[in-house]
Amino acid sequence: MAQSDPEDREFKFSSNLSLEEIRSDQHNFCKERNWAQFHPPRNVLLALVGEVGELSELFQWRGEVTRGLPDFSAHEKTRVGEELSDILIYLVDLAEQCEIDLPRAVKEKMVKNAEKYPVERVIGRSDKYNDYPEYLLQEAPAGEEPQPEREEGDGSE
Amino acid sequence: MAQSDPEDREFKFSSNLSLEEIRSDQHNFCKERNWAQFHPPRNVLLALVGEVGELSELFQWRGEVTRGLPDFSAHEKTRVGEELSDILIYLVDLAEQCEIDLPRAVKEKMVKNAEKYPVERVIGRSDKYNDYPEYLLQEAPAGEEPQPEREEGDGSE
Amino acid sequence: MAQSDPEDREFKFSSNLSLEEIRSDQHNFCKERNWAQFHPPRNVLLALVGEVGELSELFQWRGEVTRGLPDFSAHEKTRVGEELSDILIYLVDLAEQCEIDLPRAVKEKMVKNAEKYPVERVIGRSDKYNDYPEYLLQEAPAGEEPQPEREEGDGSE
Amino acid sequence: MAQSDPEDREFKFSSNLSLEEIRSDQHNFCKERNWAQFHPPRNVLLALVGEVGELSELFQWRGEVTRGLPDFSAHEKTRVGEELSDILIYLVDLAEQCEIDLPRAVKEKMVKNAEKYPVERVIGRSDKYNDYPEYLLQEAPAGEEPQPEREEGDGSE
Repeated sequence: MAQSDPEDREFKFSSNLSLEEIRSDQHNFCKERNWAQFHPPRNVLLALVGEVGELSELFQWRGEVTRGLPDFSAHEKTRVGEELSDILIYLVDLAEQCEIDLPRAVKEKMVKNAEKYPVERVIGRSDKYNDYPEYLLQEAPAGEEPQPEREEGDGSE
Repeated sequence: MAQSDPEDREFKFSSNLSLEEIRSDQHNFCKERNWAQFHPPRNVLLALVGEVGELSELFQWRGEVTRGLPDFSAHEKTRVGEELSDILIYLVDLAEQCEIDLPRAVKEKMVKNAEKYPVERVIGRSDKYNDYPEYLLQEAPAGEEPQPEREEGDGSE
Repeated sequence: MAQSDPEDREFKFSSNLSLEEIRSDQHNFCKERNWAQFHPPRNVLLALVGEVGELSELFQWRGEVTRGLPDFSAHEKTRVGEELSDILIYLVDLAEQCEIDLPRAVKEKMVKNAEKYPVERVIGRSDKYNDYPEYLLQEAPAGEEPQPEREEGDGSE
Repeated sequence: MAQSDPEDREFKFSSNLSLEEIRSDQHNFCKERNWAQFHPPRNVLLALVGEVGELSELFQWRGEVTRGLPDFSAHEKTRVGEELSDILIYLVDLAEQCEIDLPRAVKEKMVKNAEKYPVERVIGRSDKYNDYPEYLLQEAPAGEEPQPEREEGDGSE
């Protein structure tokens, strides 16, 4: 998988916009339009799925895409930013509809991920990481749970 | 669609955690584990799709779900928070891999949404909103982006 | 979850169109247009995700929807059929790109599902099914695997 | 996007399993278990999204994947077949819940796609196809449906 090494870059976001500011803005946006009534959890979840689909359409015919989207036009890159934004807006809206404290949940999840993938153990297996991509399904960066079949070692299958 | 009215609630997130703090924490998490090499945009996009699938699985057999997830157990609600967190972490990671300034993109998108759905016009059509759900496909609350064709035919941009 | 009981209906598809006919037609469609080159597995997978997003957009603002889509206009119902078709076409295309014998895989999966959810046991727990929707996460109709946490012995639930 | 040329292959499915046979088997599977009551359209749609997520997880950390999945283990390839099957089963189930005649819808969609992308025109633009991937968003192989707005808005179509 050839690509520029993120370690070499110093990319940062340009502001400290918080999840709460996004929640508050979206809450008021919907309240002013009397749209909150249309936002029960499963509606917002399906809207989120719809936006993930629109984002995928921007990447679907390209084969592998490298960091920074060098092959995307300015217009296409703007479109990617808009779709990422729509997903984020609905994600924050969904957290509010579920009355889930998203900032706290994210911090707790990141702590859980760090405990789950101790640096020494993971670094030590980084070559295995390359040799057996399946390893990644068991130790996914964002703490995705292991697949049951694999957990069970699945000799049965 | 019977549900408690969000206007009656005063739900807020408990902190001002910023997108940049999440980006920075996830960047360091991956860098320490030498995992950045596995995060080209389409890999992270597919991981995001995977997490959206896990979130959907928590809502799939329930029929309509009301605000605050009153019918979810504490464990299930925690799981929803973890999946929302995984989606957010990958979304922020994807923005970094695409070198897109997510906070700026979100603010610009919210301004665009507000201009696209002027309160007077939308409020005035709220009953139509109910009568013709298809109206919603044309005026989606989060300002679902026009497809490229449309945009190119759309001098306003 | 109030809805008409499918048991009362005798809905059937009108033809015996096979998966192989769809594969063959789509294969020729792409070959004639020299499009096969653009269909490596992950491209087709992302196109599939895009179509699932478009389908979701047709259901997103509606709250619960009942069998037969009584509240959809003729145009909307046609759109649902078109999106279901796009998903199916890409699914079959993806199976070909992966060189997976989809008809055989489906028959094997249905046998596996039937063994996994013996009628006696499932029927016997159907009231529990209603009382504890979470049960559905553990015994999903299409053989979705149990969630790891739950496997990790959350019998307490 | 280097990959073996599908034109060189003679891959075919091994049987003529029809969509109606899958519908009928799944219908009976659910009826025997008294599960039909849990399958209103949006439940099945979210289950479909969940399975698409599980499929994506099998492709997420691999970078570009080539035709035939040469780098997948036998177990992984079996898992891909199972996820493709779960998606297909829920897709057929969803068509039944929506009372949409899927075989007819697919045949009509394929005719529509062939009319929308005349061979002469598409072949003639195949180099442009490579130069401007965005072209693909406008002329997607599976004939992605224009959104209602576009239909109403875009005289050029």
